[in-house]
Amino acid sequence: MATQGQVITCKAAVAYEPNKPLVIEDVQVAPPQAGEVRIKILYTALCHTDAYTWSGKDPEGLFPCILGHEAAGIVESVGEGVTEVQPGDHVIPCYQAECRECKFCKSGKTNLCGKVRSATGVGIMMNDRKTRFSVNGKPIYHFMGTSTFSQYTVVHDVSVAKIDPEAPLDKVCLLGCGVPTGLGAVWNTAKVEPGSNVAIFGLGTVGLAVAEGAKTAGASRIIGIDIDSKKYETAKKFGVNEFVNPKEHDKPIQEVIVDLTDGGVDYSFECIGNVSVMRAALECCHKGWGTSVIVGVAASGQEISTRPFQLVTGRVWKGTAFGGFKSRTQVPWLVEKYMNKEIKVDEYITHNLSLGEINKAFDLLHEGGCLRCVLSTSE
Amino acid sequence: MATQGQVITCKAAVAYEPNKPLVIEDVQVAPPQAGEVRIKILYTALCHTDAYTWSGKDPEGLFPCILGHEAAGIVESVGEGVTEVQPGDHVIPCYQAECRECKFCKSGKTNLCGKVRSATGVGIMMNDRKTRFSVNGKPIYHFMGTSTFSQYTVVHDVSVAKIDPEAPLDKVCLLGCGVPTGLGAVWNTAKVEPGSNVAIFGLGTVGLAVAEGAKTAGASRIIGIDIDSKKYETAKKFGVNEFVNPKEHDKPIQEVIVDLTDGGVDYSFECIGNVSVMRAALECCHKGWGTSVIVGVAASGQEISTRPFQLVTGRVWKGTAFGGFKSRTQVPWLVEKYMNKEIKVDEYITHNLSLGEINKAFDLLHEGGCLRCVLSTSE
Ligand SMILES: NC(=O)c1ccc[n+]([C@@H]2O[C@H](COP(=O)([O-])OP(=O)(O)OC[C@H]3O[C@@H](n4cnc5c(N)ncnc54)[C@H](O)[C@@H]3O)[C@@H](O)[C@H]2O)c1
Ligand SMILES: NC(=O)c1ccc[n+]([C@@H]2O[C@H](COP(=O)([O-])OP(=O)(O)OC[C@H]3O[C@@H](n4cnc5c(N)ncnc54)[C@H](O)[C@@H]3O)[C@@H](O)[C@H]2O)c1
Ligand SMILES: [Zn+2]
Ligand SMILES: [Zn+2]
Ligand SMILES: [Zn+2]
Ligand SMILES: [Zn+2]
Repeated sequence: MATQGQVITCKAAVAYEPNKPLVIEDVQVAPPQAGEVRIKILYTALCHTDAYTWSGKDPEGLFPCILGHEAAGIVESVGEGVTEVQPGDHVIPCYQAECRECKFCKSGKTNLCGKVRSATGVGIMMNDRKTRFSVNGKPIYHFMGTSTFSQYTVVHDVSVAKIDPEAPLDKVCLLGCGVPTGLGAVWNTAKVEPGSNVAIFGLGTVGLAVAEGAKTAGASRIIGIDIDSKKYETAKKFGVNEFVNPKEHDKPIQEVIVDLTDGGVDYSFECIGNVSVMRAALECCHKGWGTSVIVGVAASGQEISTRPFQLVTGRVWKGTAFGGFKSRTQVPWLVEKYMNKEIKVDEYITHNLSLGEINKAFDLLHEGGCLRCVLSTSE
Repeated sequence: MATQGQVITCKAAVAYEPNKPLVIEDVQVAPPQAGEVRIKILYTALCHTDAYTWSGKDPEGLFPCILGHEAAGIVESVGEGVTEVQPGDHVIPCYQAECRECKFCKSGKTNLCGKVRSATGVGIMMNDRKTRFSVNGKPIYHFMGTSTFSQYTVVHDVSVAKIDPEAPLDKVCLLGCGVPTGLGAVWNTAKVEPGSNVAIFGLGTVGLAVAEGAKTAGASRIIGIDIDSKKYETAKKFGVNEFVNPKEHDKPIQEVIVDLTDGGVDYSFECIGNVSVMRAALECCHKGWGTSVIVGVAASGQEISTRPFQLVTGRVWKGTAFGGFKSRTQVPWLVEKYMNKEIKVDEYITHNLSLGEINKAFDLLHEGGCLRCVLSTSE
């Protein structure tokens, strides 16, 4: 409580410029204003969206900023009017907000929320349209409304999921992005039924979570597709029961899958972010009903295409953001499922480092052997 | 019964070459073989698919052929093993077959049927993989498994819908293609709910049927979009209650619609066959849930495209063939709905001509004032 209402000076990894190593700095974190929550981040993982913005390819990326959006921590203090969490609560910051009041939240048709987007999209907070981070008085932008590569962060109250205090934060931090995205793509977006045939393009964390989702949904054939054949061994543990490496075939991968499945799969998932694979994923779906879900995030400006006949003959093209999960409502539920051993989380963690080693963690992200690297923020 | 088992010589409009006037000829129509039905066609309408194949732009078009797929008639005779219809039955030939036995029919997920496609796709009949039409011994190809621009045609039994003998054939012939396509796009494919906002691109027969479908589904705003402003007057009668002419706006049409609807429509329908309009139709859908249905048929080789972000943020891209209706099962039901005055049909008929005037009818098809032209086959 000594810190409440005070500026906290703590360590954070600041991205000053695209593609330049992050700098571990003493950062000033201002107290939370009305409708805001200051969180002591204990563990944060890295995800490809961090690397994408850091790379400079994201035209909406703002520098200097504090990246990070897959994390867990404890509420340090709350601003005026915040009622749903209090200091000491264990929480997961959610880049996908849930206000329960806006057109989106009330529609019952989507997990998107419009409440704070006008601020989180441009790296600031709603209340005064300023940032809560600074280094020697110079403002540092927020990122995705989370900025978890810091010992303390400030987020909007609509972006905080309160979770079971018994849950190990060094594990459940993963429930902030990749794992829910994959599970939800299957459960919420595609709604895979028992007995379905499923194709998963890309067997990173997101693709493996899709596999687990498909397995628990009762899918029969779960075909993993990756250009790295080493991925199959791990993928088996997540439910993948057939594997295809597109590099080992002369035919386009969609034709390979169509042949393998007597006409195509019932559901396909693109978990890479490659627009030509997105097309292949659609076109390997069965005529009449096959549904393809885009999960991967393509680089800005890239476009998907196909012949309209693919859709006129019954295929459906969809996408998913955070797997369609309502963040504040459902992240705690996912934590419970993990605690009850109904979903995997530990199995995605291939590396553990400290915040000070974050540049090494970014390097690891591009190595085939790395799924998720969890950073401890304690020194 | 005098004709049963005999070759019938009758008048038909033969397309000898792409883009050359059809020739009214004496055509020999062989008796139906096993699983086939010979139908005396009384009335046939023209649809854009006929014009498309006739134009030579359809790479799968085969000449010489007898076009036509929106018609009604009376069974003249049936081949071996045909049990569901008998001579004298009033019927509508269906280019979308329904065998009730194949993987597609049994899936419960689509109205497509695989039973006779390998034959109808190449202008012949399944039984002997030959045509039943000839002129002086020279075979003439079938078209879409229907070939209704003829006084008699032979179709597969899985392509015949038996209808109420009281129904006026000069009207219900329209239930063979365009009208069901539009209604079904709304009822079966999009499943529009009461209170929805709907955008319809293209106000020809198909677009107007979409409007009527949307109105009966309880849609609130039904926005018609057409480059021909004269279409609005007629469209009002079918349920369109707002109109936008893209030519009267500088902004891309998707932006115009998004502005008009506070973020986009719940459902959109492309009823033109233009791939850039297909993109606009998707992009004018509301983030989070908007669903776009492609109904128009684009020219061969053309592709649709968009940024994948459109789908990742919750829009859904679909298409429809024959509006998702199971032909043999549901065309009779549509006829009943017409008889009970629950759906319009007469209102789409702007012209009545005879088969001999078919070339004039093709010209009319390209005129703004023509919706459907019904040809009588009697001389
Ligand atoms: N929609 C969302 O809400 C959301 C959330 C989180 C992540 N994502 C996105 O999901 C994607 C996957 O994330 P991840 O963490 O699993 O990534 P990852 O890099 O760990 O996994 C990608 C996998 O795809 C494989 N691959 C690459 N190119 C391929 C090709 N042409 N064909 C087949 N396989 C290929 C790689 O070998 C790798 O195994 C990323 O684009 C990420 O940005 C989306
Ligand atoms: N999917 C199916 O099963 C199926 C079945 C029947 C017909 N179709 C297709 O549906 C489409 C429509 O058929 P129809 O008989 O109603 O055609 P139509 O030509 O009578 O109507 C098309 C309308 O679109 C308007 N239009 C043209 N370009 C436009 C643009 N850029 N923006 C806005 N409006 C524009 C025209 O003015 C016209 O009113 C055709 O492509 C046809 O082949 C598909
Ligand atoms: Zn992420
Ligand atoms: Zn909201
Ligand atoms: Zn048609
Ligand atoms: Zn069938």
